[in-house]
Amino acid sequence: MTEIPVIPGEAVLAAIDPRTAIEHTREAFERYGRGEWEMPAKVYLDSPPHGDFRAMPARGDGLALLKWVTSFPGNSAKGLPVVRGEVLLSDAETGEELAVIECSSVTSLRTGAAAAVSAQALAADGAGSVGIIGCGVNGAWSARCLAAAGFGPGVCADPRVDPAEALADELGWRAGDRGEAAAQDVVVTVTPGDELVLLDSDLRPGQHLAVLGADAHGKQEIDLDAIERCRLFCDEWEQASAGGELANGVDAGIVGRDDVVQFGDVLNGEEEGRRGAEEITLFDSTGLAIQDLAICKAVYERWRAGALEAPMVSL
Amino acid sequence: MTEIPVIPGEAVLAAIDPRTAIEHTREAFERYGRGEWEMPAKVYLDSPPHGDFRAMPARGDGLALLKWVTSFPGNSAKGLPVVRGEVLLSDAETGEELAVIECSSVTSLRTGAAAAVSAQALAADGAGSVGIIGCGVNGAWSARCLAAAGFGPGVCADPRVDPAEALADELGWRAGDRGEAAAQDVVVTVTPGDELVLLDSDLRPGQHLAVLGADAHGKQEIDLDAIERCRLFCDEWEQASAGGELANGVDAGIVGRDDVVQFGDVLNGEEEGRRGAEEITLFDSTGLAIQDLAICKAVYERWRAGALEAPMVSL
Repeated sequence: MTEIPVIPGEAVLAAIDPRTAIEHTREAFERYGRGEWEMPAKVYLDSPPHGDFRAMPARGDGLALLKWVTSFPGNSAKGLPVVRGEVLLSDAETGEELAVIECSSVTSLRTGAAAAVSAQALAADGAGSVGIIGCGVNGAWSARCLAAAGFGPGVCADPRVDPAEALADELGWRAGDRGEAAAQDVVVTVTPGDELVLLDSDLRPGQHLAVLGADAHGKQEIDLDAIERCRLFCDEWEQASAGGELANGVDAGIVGRDDVVQFGDVLNGEEEGRRGAEEITLFDSTGLAIQDLAICKAVYERWRAGALEAPMVSL
Repeated sequence: MTEIPVIPGEAVLAAIDPRTAIEHTREAFERYGRGEWEMPAKVYLDSPPHGDFRAMPARGDGLALLKWVTSFPGNSAKGLPVVRGEVLLSDAETGEELAVIECSSVTSLRTGAAAAVSAQALAADGAGSVGIIGCGVNGAWSARCLAAAGFGPGVCADPRVDPAEALADELGWRAGDRGEAAAQDVVVTVTPGDELVLLDSDLRPGQHLAVLGADAHGKQEIDLDAIERCRLFCDEWEQASAGGELANGVDAGIVGRDDVVQFGDVLNGEEEGRRGAEEITLFDSTGLAIQDLAICKAVYERWRAGALEAPMVSL
């Protein structure tokens, strides 16, 4: 029998602060960009009409990870989480099971951290103010990570007033409408992707946009005119062109492979990032299993160091 | 927080006897054949030089399953298990996590049960004797399931004497050499697939062959002349033609889609099974996530009924 820890979400969030999530997420993009970490395409299991399950594998630093996670958009209306599931961590050398880790905490940290890393690398010099459009759990973690990276203050916009105000209060920012949020230096969109929340008419020179909501085909947060005005970056081309925000541009014939830079290549100095103060940069974040691996590696190291308590189970 | 049971392998094997595994595995093939259960292609995560991890999703009867399992062939020599990992079970309607289940126990039960179901459906009238070639854990469970289905006695063959004799003793069968095993009415091959263990010259009219060892490209247990002599069945064409025993025939240009019947269609009466007493039937079992779902559904039902104890953890 193998004994492994089962690490709940609360323990993950208590052990990994936004600054640590940012460092590890940046490393994941760099190492994936250099070919040191591996990641096959995720597989979708449809569960109509509720949504889908995704199985997301990755390997790096002697660890193999599988994230099993839902995207059930209708769950919000039922008071249930949209994103839930587990991460399984194994030893890549022996195959031994190492840990089961709650997955929405990992997803929130790596999603928020990706927004912050993209702003650190791509926002204009002197960019400070933040607009958060969509203040659900991943919007809130994006705001926390941007604040931890020194960005802010910000405007929190959401059709639901309560989460926007709660997030603004927590960070000493303010709640505002969509248009106000869209006018800030760094704009993060984290909505369900079923209506446009950022238009060409909102944009102004020098902004950085981190577009996080579209993670499956058919979701769209930004109008196509806006996409045409931006310098485009993505986390991973295959995934972004198939199911990310950029897929809409690909479908419309206005975005091709040569128009988009993979973000890790910028961090590794192989591709240019921002090319001037006036450029508008857009980072399409679809969410990668290597980001989950980065967070779970940190979680597992904390547990091994005795800095995180978790119940043990036998398999 | 969600509380879920973590079910160890010993509890799985104590709760699900071979007869139950056979019934549930048969149902899985039938329901998948009728399109009631869904299964996208499994995804492989290579971990060279050790082997690979596989993420295998399936959905049916309101449950969604993900099996995360290794195939690390070199592990045997190190005294480590080749097949290990976990199954995650979720509610397909809400996405809620339901259970974590040890995976090699599930794999053994569904692999062995598939051999038995194939023999029930495809072996000739009056077929009784069994040859097991490869007496590792999945070979042993194939023997147990065939015995539970009324087949036997059998000959257990393995280059390692101890597991062959232990299995023979357990079932009241006998240990023998490869050639003796290959001469029985029902022959099951469950080897690593790195050398041929069943040749054209071994075959005789009326046999049923259940070929279980080849589960990835490049593995081969049976020579091509033998394949050409058999009526061919598989668990799932895409998987079998890409990485099963039949992939070798496909690569050699001697096996095409029209030469092979999917086994579920036989159970559902949509395709003919055995067509006469002289025919040699060959079932290529690559192992399907819907089989895992069938076993895990039974395990979860036993747990819900209070017939299986497992520690609870919070996520």
